[in-house]
Amino acid sequence: MSTAQAYAATSPTSGLLPLQIERREPEPHDVEITIAFCGLCHSDVHAVRSEWRPSRYPLVPGHEIVGRVTGIGQDVTLHAIGDLVGVGCLVDSCRECISCEEGLEQYCENGSTGTYGVPDRRRGGEPTQGGYATSIVVDENYCLRVPESLDPAATAPLLCAGITVYSPMRYFGVETGDSVGVVGLGGLGHMAVKLAKAMGAEVTVFTTSEGKAEAARALGADRVVLSSDSVSMAQVRDSIDLIIDTVAAAHDLGPYLRTIRRDGALIQLGLPPGDMPPVPVGALIRKRIAYGGSMIGGIAETQEMLDFCAEHNITSDIEMVTADQLNDAYDRMVAGDVKYRFVLDIASVKEKA
Amino acid sequence: MSTAQAYAATSPTSGLLPLQIERREPEPHDVEITIAFCGLCHSDVHAVRSEWRPSRYPLVPGHEIVGRVTGIGQDVTLHAIGDLVGVGCLVDSCRECISCEEGLEQYCENGSTGTYGVPDRRRGGEPTQGGYATSIVVDENYCLRVPESLDPAATAPLLCAGITVYSPMRYFGVETGDSVGVVGLGGLGHMAVKLAKAMGAEVTVFTTSEGKAEAARALGADRVVLSSDSVSMAQVRDSIDLIIDTVAAAHDLGPYLRTIRRDGALIQLGLPPGDMPPVPVGALIRKRIAYGGSMIGGIAETQEMLDFCAEHNITSDIEMVTADQLNDAYDRMVAGDVKYRFVLDIASVKEKA
Repeated sequence: MSTAQAYAATSPTSGLLPLQIERREPEPHDVEITIAFCGLCHSDVHAVRSEWRPSRYPLVPGHEIVGRVTGIGQDVTLHAIGDLVGVGCLVDSCRECISCEEGLEQYCENGSTGTYGVPDRRRGGEPTQGGYATSIVVDENYCLRVPESLDPAATAPLLCAGITVYSPMRYFGVETGDSVGVVGLGGLGHMAVKLAKAMGAEVTVFTTSEGKAEAARALGADRVVLSSDSVSMAQVRDSIDLIIDTVAAAHDLGPYLRTIRRDGALIQLGLPPGDMPPVPVGALIRKRIAYGGSMIGGIAETQEMLDFCAEHNITSDIEMVTADQLNDAYDRMVAGDVKYRFVLDIASVKEKA
Repeated sequence: MSTAQAYAATSPTSGLLPLQIERREPEPHDVEITIAFCGLCHSDVHAVRSEWRPSRYPLVPGHEIVGRVTGIGQDVTLHAIGDLVGVGCLVDSCRECISCEEGLEQYCENGSTGTYGVPDRRRGGEPTQGGYATSIVVDENYCLRVPESLDPAATAPLLCAGITVYSPMRYFGVETGDSVGVVGLGGLGHMAVKLAKAMGAEVTVFTTSEGKAEAARALGADRVVLSSDSVSMAQVRDSIDLIIDTVAAAHDLGPYLRTIRRDGALIQLGLPPGDMPPVPVGALIRKRIAYGGSMIGGIAETQEMLDFCAEHNITSDIEMVTADQLNDAYDRMVAGDVKYRFVLDIASVKEKA
């Protein structure tokens, strides 16, 4: 065992506090990572505050992890000491089901193991603890190679926000000349704009806030449409092949479905806390539209995404925070006051130890 | 002009009454069909009763038409006098948009022309009149060849009920070994069972009525699941690739989505009069499921379907009715009391003239 300095929630209302945790000694296929940066995901807020389900405390959140390998088990072949690596939302899965065999570990039929807050079934069910910490030990197969050309801090959010939007765009085969719509311009949405542009798509950003138009264009959007303005929405009717919908609050899909072409799709990535309004079935029937969902991405696809980002020099737009700013940053995330992702500088976690 | 004996509604409450109507003289690319049989589709009831929107009266319904060519225009090359032919839901479309060019006339960007009750834009907007009539004149390009080996009366329902379920199964590439679910065992559902079996799929019928189990098996279903029984539903969890949902009343999709495998789809074909219950978004996300719609089929695909049915000796299970039984048949359709499609014997229309 080794110790790590971490920031943890101890109850739904504790906020994040310094805590020393233990990490296992590297097993034969484990790598030990000294963490440099960890992105702050909205899921972290839900978990810390037990908003989705009761969390098990203490809870160290964080699944957008970048750092360097500082120890390896005796059978590790995929990574070496000194490598720049990343860990995303998964640290294990059954490795035997058809989804795992197809490299879709996120859809593991037996349940994948999240990076924090869930029982580690191969290790007696002790809860996994995430990346707001100075180190982590993970199986080499769930560890990604981070290209050295990318800024490591701005790469951290790719491990969740990036892959979550990349995966459905690849699944639907986005390519040059396609028209991609993005609903919501937050952590996921801003990555969707950058990645869709890099795939050669024409990108339309839908926003409810006129003030975001300039920012959307700065990210590469070709068109910005105020979704509350029916005239603007009518102008883009039947023009979009694939909409990436990143909004995690309940919202009416009708206006967006009208902008989609025959045989197009709307993929929702956020899970609203309550019911969505009824889906207008006629819109699906009249244009053979698919309304679907997608969940992060598999390990191989996450590696492909990182390599794609290196090739196209894409990272997240981030605001760096230190450990003592974490609780403020959470409040700002809930208020939507971040462009576009907070990243925790793990050096500041160490200092607090 | 020539005259045809028809059955028409003259108001939302008139029911169907004998009426003499006029058919145009065949234009150069027209065929004149002496109709032998016309299927009764639930859409006919909605149109006759102005349940979807106000209909224009008098209205002759019917878009599951089979008959023989008895006249042709001078430039017709696709059909000859004496040919057994069919007409489905469409008699025209713009022929210039991308959907028409791709053979998907049902999704014509400029609006296809339905077989009855809509303005015929190439002919001054006079309303089209359907197949509860002794003859019809249609453009040869919207006329299908009916294989002589098929029973013509039992073939009529293929023109709408058959193609409506065939098209999404082809679009999703149903093939040997796939698992197809069918929700609802009416005109569309019973065709879905037969066609899916012929495509090599394992077929599961979901029904709310225990009494339909035997009938479903007789049609070829491999499994019958009572959808209201949560234990039976749990037994087929995550087992189905594609669900063809033929129910046109509002219903909760949650139980059906749970039976679908990762990357599967649920395709809804019926348009409920009111809102569907909220779609459980988490189910779409966790298994990357697509929820979509589909609308009849294009002309080329309808021909392909008819040829497929000839190859596999598939027709609809029908109950023949005469013209004086039409109004009773409508009431029985609304009550779901038909196995599985009524077909109007046009000989009885002629007798009433």
